[in-house]
Amino acid sequence: MGSMGEFELLARVRERLPPAENERLRVGTGDDAAITVPGGATATSVDAIVEGVHFDRERASLRQIGAKALATALSDMAAMGAEPGEAYTVLGVPPDLGEDECLQLLDGLVEVAAASGIALAGGDLTRSPALSLAVTVVGHAPDADRLVTRAGARPGDALVLTGELGGAAAGLLLLAHSDDGHSTEPRAEPLLARQLEPQPRLAAGRALAAAGARAMIDISDGLGGDAGHLAAAGGVGLRIEAESVPIQEGAPEVARLFGRDPLELAIGGGEDYELLAALPAADLDLEALAAAARVAVTRIGEVVDGSGVEIRRLGGQALFVGGFDQLD
Amino acid sequence: MGSMGEFELLARVRERLPPAENERLRVGTGDDAAITVPGGATATSVDAIVEGVHFDRERASLRQIGAKALATALSDMAAMGAEPGEAYTVLGVPPDLGEDECLQLLDGLVEVAAASGIALAGGDLTRSPALSLAVTVVGHAPDADRLVTRAGARPGDALVLTGELGGAAAGLLLLAHSDDGHSTEPRAEPLLARQLEPQPRLAAGRALAAAGARAMIDISDGLGGDAGHLAAAGGVGLRIEAESVPIQEGAPEVARLFGRDPLELAIGGGEDYELLAALPAADLDLEALAAAARVAVTRIGEVVDGSGVEIRRLGGQALFVGGFDQLD
Repeated sequence: MGSMGEFELLARVRERLPPAENERLRVGTGDDAAITVPGGATATSVDAIVEGVHFDRERASLRQIGAKALATALSDMAAMGAEPGEAYTVLGVPPDLGEDECLQLLDGLVEVAAASGIALAGGDLTRSPALSLAVTVVGHAPDADRLVTRAGARPGDALVLTGELGGAAAGLLLLAHSDDGHSTEPRAEPLLARQLEPQPRLAAGRALAAAGARAMIDISDGLGGDAGHLAAAGGVGLRIEAESVPIQEGAPEVARLFGRDPLELAIGGGEDYELLAALPAADLDLEALAAAARVAVTRIGEVVDGSGVEIRRLGGQALFVGGFDQLD
Repeated sequence: MGSMGEFELLARVRERLPPAENERLRVGTGDDAAITVPGGATATSVDAIVEGVHFDRERASLRQIGAKALATALSDMAAMGAEPGEAYTVLGVPPDLGEDECLQLLDGLVEVAAASGIALAGGDLTRSPALSLAVTVVGHAPDADRLVTRAGARPGDALVLTGELGGAAAGLLLLAHSDDGHSTEPRAEPLLARQLEPQPRLAAGRALAAAGARAMIDISDGLGGDAGHLAAAGGVGLRIEAESVPIQEGAPEVARLFGRDPLELAIGGGEDYELLAALPAADLDLEALAAAARVAVTRIGEVVDGSGVEIRRLGGQALFVGGFDQLD
């Protein structure tokens, strides 16, 4: 940690933090533990990112790295339909990261916390050979039945998707080829933002849960893989029509630029952090759902008897067949 | 992660895990988040250890490293007087750590989880340049008032300590000089165990909370430093009689062997994970407390008006004066 001690940095970090406040948090940072009074059910998830594995300081700013660590953790809360409650972070600080740089990273965390209404309730700070951030997020619901797991999809259910896919993978392609100058084009900006500053679909998750979603997952590994998790967890099969999957504007052009199929970016690319949910097909009102979700909601397929995932073009050609694993 | 993918390792990890069960846990590992129904107040703490910073694979077995990571996190639950609930772990796996070695580390976690009654409810696994473990632990109490923070000590309160100090620091000295052969002496074993396999004082923490402890902390940084945190958090001073501080058997001999003062190991050494608590002095029944705490409880001083910590010998000589910082 260079010439700066952990204590000194912790002191500056705490000064910088907004007061952690929500109706459930009684004691935040600075004691042996934070104290909360949940009052219902909680959803808890941990995620870690490590430099050189999940991000690269040459391609993302420290603010973006901090923001993305919390945003992607919050995406798990969205996928449960939970209301964001508290976050606990462990920051691993490498020798070449100065105090001001730590605070930039923290600024990213603080921005996302403020935007999502989650309280930064505790944390730990340690020296580390590589920059790393582990984030534990806790979300809340009035009771456990209001939280939506990956299991529970039933044959006949409609499969819906929030927003658009492929943007994050297109952004990653642009970053990987940033020497070519493509990433500086104005049209590239929304794709880069999708990759570097993902937005957890918290309102959409709660809206889908309220609308009776029986199973839900966030798209972090790509539609193919995550649909596979949903199928495996529910003991059902999923059929998805490729043409109905909304692709983010600009992504097809980027895909073609690098000789890739736009649908491949959507199905295999990942990191879009949209939500995939199974709901009863009867009375499905996509317009009302979209209004509550504050993002477009598209029906892309259905739940069927069987197992695994098939993503087919209208002509019948299978683009993706898989999803039999049991892992997240 | 060598030739092994994260998915394959995760699968083996999950097979190895005992079913995570407690009366509050509804959904454990394998979904976007774990689901619990806390039913009262929760205490949440995060801790991380990193190879080369907090431990060394040459001095501790992987089982011991895994066990210590969870045990020290649980010590924070002990210090709150909380009942252990759920743990969430992030394992950072370096290139030279094989699958079997990951599972050894996990065995240590599982042992401590079983012994303490905490459910391993979730986690993440990532490649990392150095072996690291971040642990989030959640403890429970019927309501927030039953959890004991660092603040709350009042002038006139008795200051009590569980167990004995200095053993972990003596064990560390032996490990640091293990080439000399001292660490292989039979008398060294309890000191090495104290350093490598600390035991969280969970029953003692609950007993002290039930006995009306107004402030409590675990001794991770040494009695001097941690007493300082308690003093600062409560806006009070602490006076400790050096001769009343119980020193672990064998530690004085080790201290003398390396030209150190035994009390120095107890006051500055840390990692003993005993509990320091302030309780109303009236009606203090140390024998009843010890029976409930399942460990000796010793009165070592008192809370006074003022600030900071003084640890004095009977003659009046101050051994340690400090503890004015506000940090944990």
